[in-house]
Formats: sequence, C-alpha cells, structure tokens
Amino acid sequence: MKTTIKDISKYCNVSVGTVDRALNNRPGISSQTKEKILQAAEQLSYHPNHTGRSLAKGKTMTIGVVCFDFYNYFFPELINTIEARAKEKGYFIYLILTHRNFDMERDGIRYLCERQVDGIILFPIGMDKGYVRELERMGIPIVTIYNKLDSHFPFVGVNDRQAMEDAVEYIVSKGYKHISYVTPELESQEKEGLNTYTLQQRLQGYLNGMKKAGLEDIQVLEKGSIEEKTDLLTKNISLKGKTAVLCLCDSYAIQVLDCLQSRKISVPDQIGLMGYDNIDALKYIKPRLTTIKYSVMQMGQAVTDLLFQSIQDPEFTAEYILDYSIVEGDSL
Amino acid sequence: MKTTIKDISKYCNVSVGTVDRALNNRPGISSQTKEKILQAAEQLSYHPNHTGRSLAKGKTMTIGVVCFDFYNYFFPELINTIEARAKEKGYFIYLILTHRNFDMERDGIRYLCERQVDGIILFPIGMDKGYVRELERMGIPIVTIYNKLDSHFPFVGVNDRQAMEDAVEYIVSKGYKHISYVTPELESQEKEGLNTYTLQQRLQGYLNGMKKAGLEDIQVLEKGSIEEKTDLLTKNISLKGKTAVLCLCDSYAIQVLDCLQSRKISVPDQIGLMGYDNIDALKYIKPRLTTIKYSVMQMGQAVTDLLFQSIQDPEFTAEYILDYSIVEGDSL
Repeated sequence: MKTTIKDISKYCNVSVGTVDRALNNRPGISSQTKEKILQAAEQLSYHPNHTGRSLAKGKTMTIGVVCFDFYNYFFPELINTIEARAKEKGYFIYLILTHRNFDMERDGIRYLCERQVDGIILFPIGMDKGYVRELERMGIPIVTIYNKLDSHFPFVGVNDRQAMEDAVEYIVSKGYKHISYVTPELESQEKEGLNTYTLQQRLQGYLNGMKKAGLEDIQVLEKGSIEEKTDLLTKNISLKGKTAVLCLCDSYAIQVLDCLQSRKISVPDQIGLMGYDNIDALKYIKPRLTTIKYSVMQMGQAVTDLLFQSIQDPEFTAEYILDYSIVEGDSL
Repeated sequence: MKTTIKDISKYCNVSVGTVDRALNNRPGISSQTKEKILQAAEQLSYHPNHTGRSLAKGKTMTIGVVCFDFYNYFFPELINTIEARAKEKGYFIYLILTHRNFDMERDGIRYLCERQVDGIILFPIGMDKGYVRELERMGIPIVTIYNKLDSHFPFVGVNDRQAMEDAVEYIVSKGYKHISYVTPELESQEKEGLNTYTLQQRLQGYLNGMKKAGLEDIQVLEKGSIEEKTDLLTKNISLKGKTAVLCLCDSYAIQVLDCLQSRKISVPDQIGLMGYDNIDALKYIKPRLTTIKYSVMQMGQAVTDLLFQSIQDPEFTAEYILDYSIVEGDSL
C-alpha cells in the first residue's frame, strides 16, 4: 500500500503539518525533527504523487525545451545552462529536438501542452500566422530564443545584424579587400515557410557592413556543401587580393577551416576566416578563430528567467538582447 | 469548454470510432475523411488529454534520461541519438543532468518516478547496495550506461578494460618505451562512495597492458589540474626516451594536447598522445588524435531499445557490449 503523509505523521508522532513542512522544505521546523521525518519518509518508501500535487497547485514544475539538435556545439552548451537554471528553481525539463523540422516542432509542442508543462523555451522553426495563433490558443507561456516568432512571445537573442556589421568593419580594418559570406541555404527554407530570422539578420549585417565599407564585391555562399562552398571561395584567390571569409557561426567556420587546411590553404596567410558564437571547442582548434562572443551562460539564464516571469504573469512580454564583443584570434 | 472527440464527430458528421481512427493514425479510413477530421480537430482546438490517456493505458510514453553533463562532447552526441530513437517509437524524454552529484541523481530519479515515466536511462554515479534496493523498490525499468550499477539492471557499454589494454599494445607497437596514463581523480570519488566503474575499467586496462608489455614505469596522473598533469608528463621528457600519454577519454586528450601545444611541445614529435571515444570534434583538431572508436549511434539505439524491452518485460535483463577499433591518427 502506498505510504501517505498521515503514515509518516503517525510513525514520527508529529502533526501532518509538520511532515508537510519537512517534505516541502518550509520553515517553522527544527532541523532535528526535519531529519527524523525525512528518514522516516525514506524508510517507508514515501513518494509524493506529483500528478496529484501538480493538479492541486496548478503547476507541474516542468518546462519544455524545444531545440534544433546537438550537432552545433552551441546548443548543448546552452541547454547545459538552461537545465542548471531550471533546476535551481526546482523545475525539471523535457527535451525535444526538432532537427529544424516544422512537424516535429508542432508535434513536440502539442505533446508538451498535453503533458501540462508550465512553460516552453522554443527555438522556433515555424513562423506563419496560423501557427502563432495556434500557440497563443494553447495558453502556455512560451519564450523564444534564436529565431523570433511574434512580439507576443518574449525573446532572447543577440543583435545579430549589428554584430555582423561590426564583424565586416573589423575584417576591413585588418586590410581585407574581399569578404565572402558563408551561410546555410536560405531560399529553400523560405520557400518551405520556415523561420530564418537569425539567418536573415546575420546576412543583412554582412550586406550592411559591405555597403558601409564601400565594398561591392558581394559573395554569399549558400548553396551546396561546405566542400563546394570552399571551392568557390578559393577560386582565383591569388588574383583577387587579400580575401577573408565570414561565416554565420563557428560551427560552419571550423568546417571551412578544415576544408581549407586539407587543401593546404593557410589561414590566415592565404585567406582570413571569422566565425560567430565563440563555442567552447574553439579552445582546441588552431589557428584560434576570430569570432563574435556573448555569454552563453547569461543567455541560458535569461531565457529561463523570462520563462519564469511569463509563468507568473501571462501578460508578460520582453526582449532581452545580450551584449557581444569581438574575440581577436589568429585567423585574420 | 474543452473540445472532445464527440464534438469532432458531430462537427464532421462521422462516428466517434472514425474520429479515433483519424486521430490515432489507425487504418480503415479514407485519406479524405482523415484530412477533414484532422482539420476539424485543429479548428476546434482539440487536445487529447494525455494524462487521462496515459493512466488508461498505464503508459506516459515518456522516458527519463539521467546523464552527467554536456561538457564532454560525447554526452550530447549520445543524447542526440537516444532522443531520435525514442521519438521513432513515439516516446518523449525528460533530461536530467546530475553533474556527477549523487544527490542530484537521486532527486532526479525520484522526480521521474513521481512523474510516472515508463522507464529511465541512467548514467549512474551512485552505487551502494541501499541505493540499488531503493531503485528496485521504485519498480520502474532502468537501463544503465557508462557505469555499471547492478546485474539487475540492463547495461550498455564497451569492453573498456580490453580496449585500453589494446591501446597500450598499439602504442608499444609504435616504439614507445614510456606510457603515462591521465585520468580524473579516482581516490576522492571512491572515498565519497561514488560509482567509478568506467574509470576503474579503463585504468585497469592500462595497468594490464603495461604488465603484458613488460613496462614497469607505471605513471598514473590523477591528481591536480590538466596543467599540473602536463607538468609532470613533460618533466625529464628528453631524458626518458620515446614517451606517450594515454588519456581515459578524448575530452581529456584534447585538453592535454592544448597544454602541450601552448608549451611548444610537439605531438607526436616530442610526445605521443592517444584518446578514447572518437568524438566528433576530433575532425577539427590537429594533429588528428589516435583514439578508440565505437558507434555512438549504435550505443544510443541499443540503450533505448533495451529500455523498451524492459518496459515490455519487467524481468528482462541483458548486457550489450559494443565492438570497438583503433583509429590511427597522427598523434603517435
């Protein structure tokens, strides 16, 4: 038979209220009594019925995290921080990886909704108005990160456009006359109606930076594999003058670096390289990549804290934009 | 008011059974009717009550994953695979990171138990008999990975001892006379009663390999930071003759490599280096690390599949030991 709080109170000869204080870590109880009660709870194999408790409180103390995948090291770094912050506040997390597939995202969110999570941290890949309305109708607090979805949902991010504009200015200051930009394919994603907010912002930053610097030689490499992009990059490299390549993220930059090195093209002697995100793995990669840095810990804490505020106040909305800076490596 | 299956059946003028067929993706319904019902379900904001449904079926279609952390890239790679496999079977996952803290592990498992997950994939850090009994009493299927806990629980892993023995043999075949071993601190973890199964197996493999090769110059570097370990490694290096260092995992090996390179000590010219795990990040690190490889995808699928078997059959138990091989890099 299942042990109840009453069983523990009888066993320890204390009131039900005292048992409740001990089990829920509330004040008004001596540490000795608390210890006794916790030991009894263990001996009697007491397990609170969380489903019942959560229905009573209207909270499941669970949040959902709907993320893309873990291939880009940036994401597990961020989830590490989110998980730690949530745990600090007594919350546990559901993890759903969408692999940037809209159906997986929608199914995942529906599932979380059915499981009555208290809120969701969403890296959105969906974006259309119908989808936004669907999410609003669910009535669950949602905070967005990486891609923006709608002003209705709080958002955490970096001013990607300005950061990429600054990156171009920085590269130009190093004497580069040609700057190419590497990004995942945008057109096909847009055709599918997917959310490309961050990709767009970063691309726009590159274009703005080029315009500001008076550089007309725009080269956006979005189609094909990293190998194919590297082929295009390195074509006529010696004829062109000092050339650099700016990548939308470090994960791409280290792949480009690998391709260049396997072709015996030296970075930065023959071509300059810059990334974005300052992922942990850069510590181990030579030459040290020049990149854009922001605090992943701050980002993870901010998105989790905004979600807690949204859980408290369903009308709450805010944007949290993180500071960034350029990390001067050895790749430019 | 909450939309029910009856509302949808009225709205579409079909039977409740037909609605159920459409919503649960069962055969015996035309694709046209199915489409109509799914659209109606969306328009009417229908959300199945998963809690009710799971109580009826006795399943929540949720599994818990209790892992250490994401600092070692091996773990997110594995979780990626586990999540994908679970999703294939219609399961969602709770993620709990314990940071190798026993209290966090125990609290996490209790929480999962309260949330009535169907099963748990556990990277155990706890190990004592009382804890094993506690887990057994919970009556939830648990499959262990990385560290063994008790023969009662299915386990997935690599024959680490044999693999490390083979690693030593391989290093010796490359002409090395001195082989040091780098591992996290074992003694303090053992004193705290923590589970060091994998650490022990790998260390034992090194010791066995050294014995078999007739090398008596055992050097196990477990205390201090990576910098301090590297100091000890490189002391008298030129006097000693051809020296290599074997690390318990790639995550340590790339840190040692970084320390060596920052001291201008060349790998493999001045010192040889070997890791274990063949993590993805190695692709981008020069020189290419020699390491032990096994299939992370196979490991993730195996542990998830064993858990599904345990959910079907509470008496099920098994050990799944993966094949491994040596990846010949440029670091020896």
